Amino acid sequence: MRAVRYHGNRDIRVDDIPEPECKPGFVKIAPEWCGICGSDVHEYLIGPETIPSPGRPHPITGETVPIVMGHEYAGRVVEVGEGVEDIAVGDNVAVEPIIRDNSCPTCTDGHYNLCPQLGFHGLSGYGGGLSEFSAVPAYMVHVLPAGVPTDVAALIEPLAVGWHAARMADLRGGESCLIVGAGPIGLVTLLSLKVQGAGEVVVVELTDARKAKAVELGADLVLDPRSDDVVAVLADRYGQGVDVAFDAGGHAETIQLALASVRPKGRIVNIALWEHPVEFDMFSMLFKESNLTASCAYCNDHADVIEALASGAIDVRPLITARIPLEEIVTGGIEELMHNRDAHVKILVHP
Amino acid sequence: MRAVRYHGNRDIRVDDIPEPECKPGFVKIAPEWCGICGSDVHEYLIGPETIPSPGRPHPITGETVPIVMGHEYAGRVVEVGEGVEDIAVGDNVAVEPIIRDNSCPTCTDGHYNLCPQLGFHGLSGYGGGLSEFSAVPAYMVHVLPAGVPTDVAALIEPLAVGWHAARMADLRGGESCLIVGAGPIGLVTLLSLKVQGAGEVVVVELTDARKAKAVELGADLVLDPRSDDVVAVLADRYGQGVDVAFDAGGHAETIQLALASVRPKGRIVNIALWEHPVEFDMFSMLFKESNLTASCAYCNDHADVIEALASGAIDVRPLITARIPLEEIVTGGIEELMHNRDAHVKILVHP
Repeated sequence: MRAVRYHGNRDIRVDDIPEPECKPGFVKIAPEWCGICGSDVHEYLIGPETIPSPGRPHPITGETVPIVMGHEYAGRVVEVGEGVEDIAVGDNVAVEPIIRDNSCPTCTDGHYNLCPQLGFHGLSGYGGGLSEFSAVPAYMVHVLPAGVPTDVAALIEPLAVGWHAARMADLRGGESCLIVGAGPIGLVTLLSLKVQGAGEVVVVELTDARKAKAVELGADLVLDPRSDDVVAVLADRYGQGVDVAFDAGGHAETIQLALASVRPKGRIVNIALWEHPVEFDMFSMLFKESNLTASCAYCNDHADVIEALASGAIDVRPLITARIPLEEIVTGGIEELMHNRDAHVKILVHP
Repeated sequence: MRAVRYHGNRDIRVDDIPEPECKPGFVKIAPEWCGICGSDVHEYLIGPETIPSPGRPHPITGETVPIVMGHEYAGRVVEVGEGVEDIAVGDNVAVEPIIRDNSCPTCTDGHYNLCPQLGFHGLSGYGGGLSEFSAVPAYMVHVLPAGVPTDVAALIEPLAVGWHAARMADLRGGESCLIVGAGPIGLVTLLSLKVQGAGEVVVVELTDARKAKAVELGADLVLDPRSDDVVAVLADRYGQGVDVAFDAGGHAETIQLALASVRPKGRIVNIALWEHPVEFDMFSMLFKESNLTASCAYCNDHADVIEALASGAIDVRPLITARIPLEEIVTGGIEELMHNRDAHVKILVHP
C-alpha cells in the first residue's frame, strides 16, 4: 500500500509498504481524510524531534525512522480484530492518536496525555493516517455519528487540542478571554471557548488573513500589537484586564502579553510548544497572583468534541483551506504550509 | 520621639521626630516588639526600591525618604481616634501594614494585597513600628487575645505570608509538599502547612543552621541539592513527585527544582521576590500540565494566624533568634543579618 513516511530532515516520501496486520484488540481503518499538523511541518524543517531519530527508538513503540505520518484523521473501518466490541466493519471513525502505556502510572491514572514517554500514532510509530490503511488499538477509535462526515472528523484531533485548552481555563460563565495568536491552535481554542460558555473572546494577531479568519469564526475583537496598545484596550474594556489569556504563540513577547493582559487573580493557559527556555518576569505574576497553567494535547475530550460537531454547535468547515491527494503531500502540503502559511488553516489529504 | 528612619542606601538612622497625630479613624500605638524583615535588609543594601526614593513619592502616601521603618510589629494602644469602635486604650494589638486605597478597584474587591500601588506602613510612609509611637488607620489593627504576647505577635506579619502561601496551594488533606529554601519565609510556610493539613513536608536547604531549624519546626525530611538527587528522592518517596512545591528561593535553580519536583498535574507556588527575569523552561510545565501561581504578602489571613497562635497550634518562639534595643538597629540588627544571616530567623527590636 502507499504510505507517507518520514525518513529524515526535509525527506518525506510516498513509499510502497506492506499493509498493517489487524491484531487482536486492534481496528484496521482505511483513512479517508487526514490533516497536516504544524508539528509535521516542524519535523520536516528542523526534525527529527518528536519523531524518533536513527538509533533512538521511541521507548514504547521501539520504532525509528522511517515512520508513517498522519495523526489527524478519520476513515472507514475495514477489519476488526478479535475481542473488539462496539466497533464494526463499515463504521466511520476518528482516531485519537495518543499511545497509552499500561505500565505507566500516569496513563493508568487517566492522564494519558501526560505520559512521560508521550507518543503519537503517526509520529512515534505504529503506522499513521497518511496511508491507505492503518491498524490501531481499539482505545484510539471513536465511532462517528451519522452527521459527522470524515472530512469534518479529520479536524476532531486539532479541535480537541483547543477544547482541552479551554477546559484547562476552568471557565466561569461569561468570562472574558484573550487568545494570543490566531494560527490553527488559536482558532480551535476560539471555537471551543464560545461553546464552553466564555464571554467575549479577543484575539491578538499580526497577519491579515488570520485576523479575517478569527472574525469569521466569532472573535469579538481582533487587535494588532503593532497598532493597538493591547493591555490598555483590555484594561479599559474589562476593568482590570481579561479573566483568562491563552498563549498560542510560544514566544517571549506572546507570554509576556498574556501575563500583562489578565486582571488580578487572572489565569493564563499556555498552549504553545516552546522551542527554547524563555526569559520570564515572575514579578508580573507575583503582584497579580496570576495563575499559569499549560495544556498538553487532550485527554478525554474527544466525546465532547464529537458531540459539539454533531449538534452543530461548532462548524469546523471554514478551517479547511485545501484538499490534496496523497502524492502531493510535500509540494501541495508541507511546503505549501511553509511558503504560504498564513493563507491556510488546515490542509486535508485524501489517502 | 525616637524613630528608625531610612534615609538612603546604607543610611539608616535613629532620629528624633514629632509624635504622630491620632486622627479620626486612627489608632495610636506604642510598639513593643518589631521584627526586622529581609526586605529591610534588602533596602539597606540595594535600595531604595520599595521605599520611595527622592523625587518619586509613593502614589498613595505622597511620602519619600526619610521614611520611618518597621512593618512587623505589635504593641499597646495609647490613644483611639474619633469613630473607632472595638479598639480601646490598653489593648494589645498587632498591625497589618498593607495600605488600602478606597479609590482602587482591586482594594475594594477585597484583594488589597494586589493593589497596583501596593504600599506598606513602615516602608512606604505613614510611619512605622520601629519608633516609640505609631498611628495607623483602624483597619490595620488586630486586637490580640490574652494568650498572645506582643513579642510573639510581632511574628504575625511574617507568619501571615507563609499562611497565605499555604492557602494559595489549595491543599487537599494529606498532600505532600516541598519547600525550596528554609529562610524565614520558607520556615513560616512550613509551620502553616502543618496546621493547614498538609501531609509530609520536605525542605530543601543548603546551610546547616537552617536545615536544623527546619527539622526543629517539623520538616519530615531535609534535602541538600549538593548531595541529594532531590527530584529522584521525591519521585521515589511519593510515586511521581510531590503534590505541591513552594519556591521560597527566587533563583533560576530554585524555580526549576520546584517545577521538576512536582507530579503530573502538580502545583507550584512562588513566594519569593524576584530581582531579575528568570530563564524559564515552559516545556517542563507543558508535559505535566503543572500549575504555577504566586503568593503576594497576605490578605484576610491575620485572624486565622492569630487563632493558630492563641490555640497553640503554631509556636513561633523558636523563630526569635535575638532581641535588641532600638539603638542597635544597624549594628545588632541590619548588619548582623547581613553578616550572620544563616544563624538568624527573626531579630526583634524593642522600641
